[in-house]
Amino acid sequence: MSEEACLLRNDRGDGLTTLTLNRPGQFNSLSREMLTALQRELDAIATDETVRVVVIAGAGKAFCAGHDLKEMRANHSKEFMQALFRQCGELMLTITRLPQPVIARVHGIATAAGCQLVSMCDLAVAADVAKFAVSGINVGLFCSTPAVGLARNLGRKAALEMLLTGEFIDAMEARAKGLVNRVVPADALDAEIERLAGSILAKSAVAVRMGKGMFYKQLEMGLADAYDYAGEVMACNMMSEDAGEGIDAFMQKRPPNYKGC
Amino acid sequence: MSEEACLLRNDRGDGLTTLTLNRPGQFNSLSREMLTALQRELDAIATDETVRVVVIAGAGKAFCAGHDLKEMRANHSKEFMQALFRQCGELMLTITRLPQPVIARVHGIATAAGCQLVSMCDLAVAADVAKFAVSGINVGLFCSTPAVGLARNLGRKAALEMLLTGEFIDAMEARAKGLVNRVVPADALDAEIERLAGSILAKSAVAVRMGKGMFYKQLEMGLADAYDYAGEVMACNMMSEDAGEGIDAFMQKRPPNYKGC
Amino acid sequence: MSEEACLLRNDRGDGLTTLTLNRPGQFNSLSREMLTALQRELDAIATDETVRVVVIAGAGKAFCAGHDLKEMRANHSKEFMQALFRQCGELMLTITRLPQPVIARVHGIATAAGCQLVSMCDLAVAADVAKFAVSGINVGLFCSTPAVGLARNLGRKAALEMLLTGEFIDAMEARAKGLVNRVVPADALDAEIERLAGSILAKSAVAVRMGKGMFYKQLEMGLADAYDYAGEVMACNMMSEDAGEGIDAFMQKRPPNYKGC
Repeated sequence: MSEEACLLRNDRGDGLTTLTLNRPGQFNSLSREMLTALQRELDAIATDETVRVVVIAGAGKAFCAGHDLKEMRANHSKEFMQALFRQCGELMLTITRLPQPVIARVHGIATAAGCQLVSMCDLAVAADVAKFAVSGINVGLFCSTPAVGLARNLGRKAALEMLLTGEFIDAMEARAKGLVNRVVPADALDAEIERLAGSILAKSAVAVRMGKGMFYKQLEMGLADAYDYAGEVMACNMMSEDAGEGIDAFMQKRPPNYKGC
Repeated sequence: MSEEACLLRNDRGDGLTTLTLNRPGQFNSLSREMLTALQRELDAIATDETVRVVVIAGAGKAFCAGHDLKEMRANHSKEFMQALFRQCGELMLTITRLPQPVIARVHGIATAAGCQLVSMCDLAVAADVAKFAVSGINVGLFCSTPAVGLARNLGRKAALEMLLTGEFIDAMEARAKGLVNRVVPADALDAEIERLAGSILAKSAVAVRMGKGMFYKQLEMGLADAYDYAGEVMACNMMSEDAGEGIDAFMQKRPPNYKGC
Repeated sequence: MSEEACLLRNDRGDGLTTLTLNRPGQFNSLSREMLTALQRELDAIATDETVRVVVIAGAGKAFCAGHDLKEMRANHSKEFMQALFRQCGELMLTITRLPQPVIARVHGIATAAGCQLVSMCDLAVAADVAKFAVSGINVGLFCSTPAVGLARNLGRKAALEMLLTGEFIDAMEARAKGLVNRVVPADALDAEIERLAGSILAKSAVAVRMGKGMFYKQLEMGLADAYDYAGEVMACNMMSEDAGEGIDAFMQKRPPNYKGC
């Protein structure tokens, strides 16, 4: 992928892959081209066992300003809109379904579908200067699809306030409300991403994959079904070579040597 | 509606309607008469396009002290109780289903069904002196219907603690736990309500209405269904005149001129 | 039950029963023997009307370090694992289904299934030195069953961070995130448990029992069904002798005299 592409992929070689939204002049807005590029990379990553953790970042000043309003206004048909939101929803579900954990690296503003993208990543680390809003309501367009992710991160009153007012919250407020995990000074953002991703890279890939998939599935179950299901997954996980190795290493007070797939 | 009525309605003419619980001598308790009056006004408002935002306030010292215990004790039959809680539950659902956003203006104590009323409003602004409790347990009556709203605002341990102990939490704690959006000094309460309501009044009524309805429906869906549904709603919203106008105005850097219905 | 037993039961005689995990040398890990003992005591308590509040505590330095890794490693078959997680899941559901409220007294570390145990208790009070982690991922075993309880206490990003990193959070962070209700200095822990349990002991046992059962059931319902159900329960509660006595006592400004069963 060339430097001119709307999405940059960097595989560091140790399991960390970074996808960088690269339309800085358009605040990395999620044009159809961008959505397609993201979907393509995530689909490729889903079956790539060399990728262990994915970071989604943004080039330039903003993290992501949501959908491309110009493109939307230039394609004014219900069919276009339905296809657009279907594509975007599919991408968001893909993040949740991806075997690997996805971390949002939020260095600047994240608005509308950009805020939704943060909400749908498994984890998020923000610079203290980052700001978050679901601002569609400011242009007559309630952020309905962003609301899906937002309402599954924040309490309902906090989510509705953002959706109805379109107002920004800052990074610390986003952390207190559950939208991001960690907030650090801008110049410490990469180090913090490194710490968080590094912690996960040190884990068994089998366990991480089984666990992430289980986590989202059990969320949609009642308590008794969730326990039945989680118990089955955990029994399978326990029979993996990695769990045997992990427990042996722990009891022998040495570092584990996971097989990694 | 006369000044003697248990519920006062004030239409300010700019889209803001305030319903004031007006039984200050009984701490605005939700007698059958009060529930009926609230239901009647909300049903009328539901189809009244001149109303854009509803504020629920209380006259006198308290916001609302819940059900009318004297009335309940004087009508001691299971049929009465079933009818009472059915009527109250219906009212609470009506708030959620109302096209217009509803803001609780909590200037004093909100207990039992009064706390439930706060929990079921879309948004809530509290004075710093306001206090919240689900205090039925103190008289041998677990606040079961208030628990429905409370558990959808607070985490489950925080909700259960309030329900089992009947103890008060103050306004700042209520905000931290998700029961209210904003807390201000008592003498700044009206200004803050004004700011919050004003922000919503400036938005497209079509977008607000579509969005509020969508928000509560998608909350009860799994993630994939929620995205399907929200995407459809957003495509419809995008085809509205208001969204076209809003986006055009944004791109032309002028204020939008919404049609408003 | 002898002092050598893995689980100690103390009935104080005023309705408070304490179950103390008593394998301090193994950090109170949840061996099959411990799970069986806990299940047996909770099953007995479920039908014992003299028990009004249950406290789960731990002997020695730790609250509970989760499953017994040595026992798991020594019984390496899928059947064993399935049976183990089924037994553990059943125990966790038993806590939720128990008529009496259950309070976790967390004086030290609570990890993996020990953290899950805290999450599944109705209430939790922690010493400021207590720490919490779902650390299975550190040995190649994603804490899938703990995730069920954790995700129903914390927001999903916070839960996933703990599950994927295995890192500890301290007691104040646990409180902010919703895992525990109260945090006090270690030497004030018993007094705080006393205050919380005492508050519940002073309530009507009928109302507490009806309320706790209702609370968890309505959590799994949509809003309209939850109101229907909660309204029915509350009408029944209102017809109890205790509610009549409680309301009369309140109106006559005297302490209530509940029948208590």
